[in-house]
Formats: sequence, structure tokens, C-alpha cells
Amino acid sequence: MCSVVNQPANATGRAPRGGNGRAGREPYDLDAVLDIAVRAFNEFGYEATSMGVLAERLGTSKSAIYYHVTGKEDLLRRALERALGGLEGILAEPGAVDGSPAERLRFVLRGAVRVLADDLPYVTLLLRLRGNTELEREALARRRAFDRAVAELVDEARVEGTLRADIDARTAVRLLFGMINSIVEWYRPGGALTPDQLADDVITVAFEGLRVHSAGDAAAASSLATRVSTS
Amino acid sequence: MCSVVNQPANATGRAPRGGNGRAGREPYDLDAVLDIAVRAFNEFGYEATSMGVLAERLGTSKSAIYYHVTGKEDLLRRALERALGGLEGILAEPGAVDGSPAERLRFVLRGAVRVLADDLPYVTLLLRLRGNTELEREALARRRAFDRAVAELVDEARVEGTLRADIDARTAVRLLFGMINSIVEWYRPGGALTPDQLADDVITVAFEGLRVHSAGDAAAASSLATRVSTS
Repeated sequence: MCSVVNQPANATGRAPRGGNGRAGREPYDLDAVLDIAVRAFNEFGYEATSMGVLAERLGTSKSAIYYHVTGKEDLLRRALERALGGLEGILAEPGAVDGSPAERLRFVLRGAVRVLADDLPYVTLLLRLRGNTELEREALARRRAFDRAVAELVDEARVEGTLRADIDARTAVRLLFGMINSIVEWYRPGGALTPDQLADDVITVAFEGLRVHSAGDAAAASSLATRVSTS
Repeated sequence: MCSVVNQPANATGRAPRGGNGRAGREPYDLDAVLDIAVRAFNEFGYEATSMGVLAERLGTSKSAIYYHVTGKEDLLRRALERALGGLEGILAEPGAVDGSPAERLRFVLRGAVRVLADDLPYVTLLLRLRGNTELEREALARRRAFDRAVAELVDEARVEGTLRADIDARTAVRLLFGMINSIVEWYRPGGALTPDQLADDVITVAFEGLRVHSAGDAAAASSLATRVSTS
């Protein structure tokens, strides 16, 4: 599956990934085909994107794309697999399995932000699915399973006493994902805000909130201490 | 503008608002026409929704709709005005003008959640605009102006020292709106979660975070007090 299709000089200008290095040819491998397909799906919509449009964007023929994939749905399947596989992979890492529920929750949310930042167009595609086909419904079911795993961590952390219980767990999870999923709408990889800093910011807002109540803020802390000592 | 169009027995089943009460007739007023138009725009997309489809949904004729509005763009203009007017109205209220920046910010965010919950389909329409026409671009400019007003409150609260300064203000505003705007994707008015409770939850997560560190949590508070006293 690593054979290449040709990219003429007047194509997208995007550096292709991999290839066989044949002299005078700018090759595209499957990953590059997938990248361009995902961008087109996000721009025009999956239904409205034809294999002809993809071939045009790649500066190649439809048959060259069919060398890599069996068709448009195969491209969608592989793209969704990349987004979902990335998210599901987080849950299998030691940080998501070992430690207190709150620690595991932080690890998983941080991982989700990383997957979003690293594979932004792929996760965008996943988040915009409507469930029009069996493939889309299967992907949505896997996305819901990931959300449920996070919801269970929230539940466990509430039982443990580290997460506040005065907000309904489902509402908390939805607000968390609202914040995290919004990243695909405004984050631009390669800018001043690195994926790590972005993940830190999300974790800080989600767990600590924007109000100053850190140990470094003496006024807020003494006000808190006063309330505790008089309660 | 309060004249009515007729709704036959086989129409949507939705209770019409207002009307002139002529016996044997189920009337639609402008608000009801707008409601149905907005729902259709959200379901099929604005471009794909014809006046014919709207007439069919209303169980009336296109000319009956033209009695209320000059055309499809007029419906869109009025729908967007309702969403934007609601948001802009918050900024003019005393709670958005008087008090500390943090208090005003809470008031505005709470108001935004209320507008979203009360006029969910209208705000959904606004949030999904792509800026394809002059009308859409004007609406997006007004939405950005609202976002900027919130960003200025965040800035002022940071200067005041009540909001944490270790997160970039633009990132903070985007995460806040990510959380708030996500409400249109999952909130169902009329359920157990009231708009007021929803607003409380959003304000709590945004300002306090999900981690337990309230005055009621003695362990967290004493740990904080210890850190403050030894720093």
C-alpha cells in the first residue's frame, strides 16, 4: 500500500509524505491521499466530494487513487479510524489505567486534546458526522463509547471526592467535551500556542476554573481560610 | 404584521402562536413562520431550504408567507436579529455595566447561556453561519463584537486580579465560548436541567473548575492554607 501517485508541479504545494523517491516525480503515498481527502470532506462535505475532485486536488487520475483505496467510503473509513484509534489508544495507555480516577481523567483529557491538535482535520471530520450511513453510525458509536469512558472516570472521581458533585455528571462531561471539541473550530497548529500548552490550559480551566484561588493568591486564600475557620 | 395564514388539520401539529381566532381556522403569525423557517434552515441548511418547503411545512401557500416577509433572506435576517439582539441586549443590562469586571463577566456569561437556552434554534443558526452572503457576514461581525466585549471583561478581570493570568486571555475566551456554544448541540429545553441550573453549572465550571476546592472541603482548604502559610 506504499506505492505512489504523481503530483504535477501545479498541484497543492503541500509537501508529500513518503514516496519512492523516483527522480523528477513528486510522489503521494496513502497518508497524503488521506490528508487531501479529509481536507476536501471538511471543506465541501463528504457527500459533495467526488473521487474526481480528489484526483484533481492530487493532480492525478482517479485510477491512481483506486490503487490505494477501494473508494470514497474506504477513505472515510481510514480517516475515521485514525481519529477514533487515536482517542481509543489513550484509554489503553498506563496513565489511563493506573492512578486515582482524577489523575486518570486528567491524563485522558490531556490525551484527547493532543489527538485533536495532532490530527485536527481528522477529528473535525469525526465531530461533524451526522450518522447518514452504517459506517458513520459505527464511528459515532465508537465516539460515544469514548465519551462514556470519560464519563465513568468523572463518576469515579466524584465518588472518590476529588471532583465536585454539585454538577450533574452528564452535564459536566458535556461541558468538558464542549470545551475540548471547540478546539477544532479555532486552534491553528504551528502557532504560538503549542499542543502541550493548549492541553495544560484546558486541564487548568476544567479542574481549577478561571477564578484566582491558587496558593499564590494570598487574598483569595485568606478569604477561603477565614470561611473555613468560621464554618 | 399580525395577520394570519391558515394551517390545515394535517399540518405540523405544532400549536400556533397568536392569531385572530377566526372559528375553524388555525392561524400562524410571523413568530410561528419564523420558528418553522429556523428549524428548516437548521435541518436542511439555509441554501437548500426553499420557500416552497416552508409553505409545505406551514401547510399554507408561499404567498401567505410573503404576506409576512419579503423572502427567504428576510426570514434569515429576522432570525439572526433575534439571536444577536438577545446577546447584545445582555451587554446593555445594568449587571453588565455595574460592578467589578468579574461580576460583570459572570452576568454576561449567565445571560448568554440563557439566550442560548431560550432561543436555541436561533442561536444554532447563528453559530453555523459560514459568511456566504453580506447578511451572514454582518451577522458574524456582530457575533465577533459580542465575543470581543466578553474578551474585554476577561482582560479587565485579569488586571483586577480576580481571573488567573497564566492562561492567555484569547485562549480563555475561546474555551469559555467552546463550553457555552456546545450547549446548542446537546441541551434539550423542557427537560430536568433548567436554563437557570445550566447557567449555574457553566459559571461554576468556568470560574471554579470541577476539582473540589470549596470552603466546604476541609481537606483541600487546609492543604491550601498550609501551602499559603509556609510560602
